[in-house]
Amino acid sequence: MELSFATGNRNKVKEASAVLERFGISINQSPLRKIEIQSGDLVEIVEYALSHLCMEANNLVVEDDGLFVNSLNGFPGPYAAYAYSTIGVRGLLKLMQGVAGEERRATFKSVVGACVGGRRFIVEGAVDGVITEEPRGSSGFGFDPVFSPLGGGRTFAEMSIEEKSRYSHRALAFSRLAERLLKEGAL
Amino acid sequence: MELSFATGNRNKVKEASAVLERFGISINQSPLRKIEIQSGDLVEIVEYALSHLCMEANNLVVEDDGLFVNSLNGFPGPYAAYAYSTIGVRGLLKLMQGVAGEERRATFKSVVGACVGGRRFIVEGAVDGVITEEPRGSSGFGFDPVFSPLGGGRTFAEMSIEEKSRYSHRALAFSRLAERLLKEGAL
Repeated sequence: MELSFATGNRNKVKEASAVLERFGISINQSPLRKIEIQSGDLVEIVEYALSHLCMEANNLVVEDDGLFVNSLNGFPGPYAAYAYSTIGVRGLLKLMQGVAGEERRATFKSVVGACVGGRRFIVEGAVDGVITEEPRGSSGFGFDPVFSPLGGGRTFAEMSIEEKSRYSHRALAFSRLAERLLKEGAL
Repeated sequence: MELSFATGNRNKVKEASAVLERFGISINQSPLRKIEIQSGDLVEIVEYALSHLCMEANNLVVEDDGLFVNSLNGFPGPYAAYAYSTIGVRGLLKLMQGVAGEERRATFKSVVGACVGGRRFIVEGAVDGVITEEPRGSSGFGFDPVFSPLGGGRTFAEMSIEEKSRYSHRALAFSRLAERLLKEGAL
């Protein structure tokens, strides 16, 4: 079974692949581009993207994720990629100056959608953590160097892809997708 | 001549109205909702919205705007509304701490699109200014209290709607729309 992932981000394909291979599913990068609407709700964003892409392709996967920082009322949310490319890690840490302890809590969320055999699947994954005081590590991408899942101590950027594929929001969502596809006999 | 403005923001309708009435055009708020895609390019956002709405309605107007701060690499850009509702004016000023003089330059941009008589029009307006050190004034909305157009000294929030309708990016775009519609006999 092979799925195509409509994303411009190669890192996401690598992360999805590390998870799905455990279920005997392979995934490659699709040249199709998804339409992303502006919304604070990741499910709404993924549903809209699917509604267009499912007309063009089968065995197709899309994903959207966001970083929701409690003390910033959910900023940068679904716009994490734009925030990263403009204010960057440095900007996020500046916004968090003077914010301490529990107040540094944040959640990384991932929503994965798929069209397989004429059916649509939407699953979610979320992981709670904290925004660290300083960036640490060089793996991953985006805000990974300042996000540390609860209980771990290390940031996503301090983990290998294999390790991140056991802990991350995206890994959780892709695991759930694989389980659903297998359980419902869609593969 | 009456146009309908597909926006959830009443303040934008008021501002557009203050400009268009000088040209003998009235504008009301439309219940239609525009689809906003994620993009750093306001023209692309407006073109996509028009491509859907023009199938449903005539004499319809949409607008999208953004605040592009130089020292923040264009942040918050088209996502100014989300940034405002999460980190707010306080967050923007925090990001600008230690940024002085010329480095505080920013541009407010507005892109207005219309479907009139089966034709599409897209016009732009932009105004350069600075992000002030502190919020000032209570008119307008969003980041108006911290944006002061060059040469003026006062912020948008220190101006009445009538005054803002002479200086703002949105006023400029709506003036250009009226001029195009009149010049090309679309009304």
